[in-house]
Amino acid sequence: MKLSARNLSERVDTLYDAIVVGGGMGGLSAAIYLARYGLKCLIVEKGKGRSIWMQDLRNYVGLDPETSGGSIVKDSTKHALEWGADHLRGFVDEVVDEGDIFSVKVQIGRKNPVEATFKSKYVIAASGVIDVLPETDDMQNVFNYAGYTLHVCMICDGFDMWDQKAVLIAGRESQINAAFVLNWFTPYISVLTHGFEVSDEMKAKLADHGYPLYEQKIARFLGEKHKMSGVELADGTVVEATTGLINMGSIYHNHYLKGIDGLEWDGENLVTHGLAQTSHDRIFAIGDLKQGLNQVSIAVADGTKAATQIWRNIRRASAPRKWEENIKKPAEVA
Amino acid sequence: MKLSARNLSERVDTLYDAIVVGGGMGGLSAAIYLARYGLKCLIVEKGKGRSIWMQDLRNYVGLDPETSGGSIVKDSTKHALEWGADHLRGFVDEVVDEGDIFSVKVQIGRKNPVEATFKSKYVIAASGVIDVLPETDDMQNVFNYAGYTLHVCMICDGFDMWDQKAVLIAGRESQINAAFVLNWFTPYISVLTHGFEVSDEMKAKLADHGYPLYEQKIARFLGEKHKMSGVELADGTVVEATTGLINMGSIYHNHYLKGIDGLEWDGENLVTHGLAQTSHDRIFAIGDLKQGLNQVSIAVADGTKAATQIWRNIRRASAPRKWEENIKKPAEVA
Repeated sequence: MKLSARNLSERVDTLYDAIVVGGGMGGLSAAIYLARYGLKCLIVEKGKGRSIWMQDLRNYVGLDPETSGGSIVKDSTKHALEWGADHLRGFVDEVVDEGDIFSVKVQIGRKNPVEATFKSKYVIAASGVIDVLPETDDMQNVFNYAGYTLHVCMICDGFDMWDQKAVLIAGRESQINAAFVLNWFTPYISVLTHGFEVSDEMKAKLADHGYPLYEQKIARFLGEKHKMSGVELADGTVVEATTGLINMGSIYHNHYLKGIDGLEWDGENLVTHGLAQTSHDRIFAIGDLKQGLNQVSIAVADGTKAATQIWRNIRRASAPRKWEENIKKPAEVA
Repeated sequence: MKLSARNLSERVDTLYDAIVVGGGMGGLSAAIYLARYGLKCLIVEKGKGRSIWMQDLRNYVGLDPETSGGSIVKDSTKHALEWGADHLRGFVDEVVDEGDIFSVKVQIGRKNPVEATFKSKYVIAASGVIDVLPETDDMQNVFNYAGYTLHVCMICDGFDMWDQKAVLIAGRESQINAAFVLNWFTPYISVLTHGFEVSDEMKAKLADHGYPLYEQKIARFLGEKHKMSGVELADGTVVEATTGLINMGSIYHNHYLKGIDGLEWDGENLVTHGLAQTSHDRIFAIGDLKQGLNQVSIAVADGTKAATQIWRNIRRASAPRKWEENIKKPAEVA
């Protein structure tokens, strides 16, 4: 059922089997499996996740390579609802571990937000990351290219940059090292730091590879209809490029777990083992929030794994269902 | 490129980066990633894999739940070809480890088969399993229901059996234990052994749950238009059921790896770690052939992982591509 501030009362007494924080590809996979296991689950989706930026998802088996992330999320949300999942547009503020159950505090709506608390046995952290983009005076100009010809994922889109003139936009020096991987796809790399200054050592390494370095601020991206032709820097310099890779790091949506004891972290990623289990028995982490490759296919598989382990746990703790009318008396068996 | 006995000569001198044995969901995912990493890969697909039995794939994010396995394989094979993968309909007889490369011997065609040998740096074992079905005099009668209302995967299709009268068809006694998991979805379970006899202990356990047991051979499935209404046994008994689960084990397509030294097995499954790596540096195993859940989403993610690790290995062993025209002389850098 689609929940909103208006119909929350219908679920106020529900003890969910699992609350899935994040309704992207991984969270939807978890919800579809949970619902098909007959478990009560709620997806809380804040909107504007990484999926929405994907203009086309070219490496996922079964889909037309032109399919956008947004359309997948829309269709799969509908399927999850049809199988019986609940879905709420909201922002998870905090998850509180109360021993056997969690209280999940959700803010619903931006203006005059309503605060609601849901209860569940398990939590699946599927809230992922969002890529840091270069801040410029006109962000719409960035959005016009990001996800089209200005990429954030080399594994996903390196192929589409093949032997093109490319900019690599880094947020700090270590991120410039992506140039020495990106050169698998194209050697025509100009490195933009959007303002920070680079060590002599890195300068020499870039020069050795023939990759020009620009330490000025980016003024704007040039091109038309989402197709880049170059980047204009603050001093008026134009760097010619038909594609680009932004490698400025990620913002992790994991604040709501920071108060939980006993969770093992690797930086901002959750450490998982087995079927997407964290070091906390009743918290699972899937997709970009956990260690590993940030790929849709992997997030979707993680959702399968987390839901299956939760089903196993709940099933094993439940009494077996017998076919009562067929039960034979002990005498008949012997 | 689509290969066949007619155009093999075009690839006779090719050293593939990877040969993917099996063109189901996992193998296609691997091939799509490999091709998009710019690596040379060949899929060898024998046909009639498990995917083809799926009349609808209801739990895979992004697809209409009515999508059949066959249509996904067809579409994704086309995509893999478009990105640059080679695809050959053939049967892998043997993989021979020659130190740095593998020789992969393939039989092409059924009548008057042609034998061809391909060379590759890596092998991805994606040839999966096929479910054992009950043998009856009229196999077409079994095929009329298998994959429709007569299921082979409880995780995939348990939801579609909910509270229906169901038969569980086991191939040996231990497989009867699936009844005590299937009862999560329905308690109205009749157990059919298709001929083998069950221990008193198991009989008592089934009786305790009220699940009738039939040890006769199955004569045929009853119903129409792929919808089961029951099962007729050899002695004429009709067991009423609108759905069923076949749990008779799997045939593993792994014969071609049995001659390889140093592969770690868990029964017929390959043991993997990290990104779908087996205990052999240059052999990867994905999907149902490796340990773990047999789910499409997981096979697809495995394909992503194997291809990515192979790309990393090959990339790290390659000279970096420099932008030669931009290379500065040491004096300019200093």
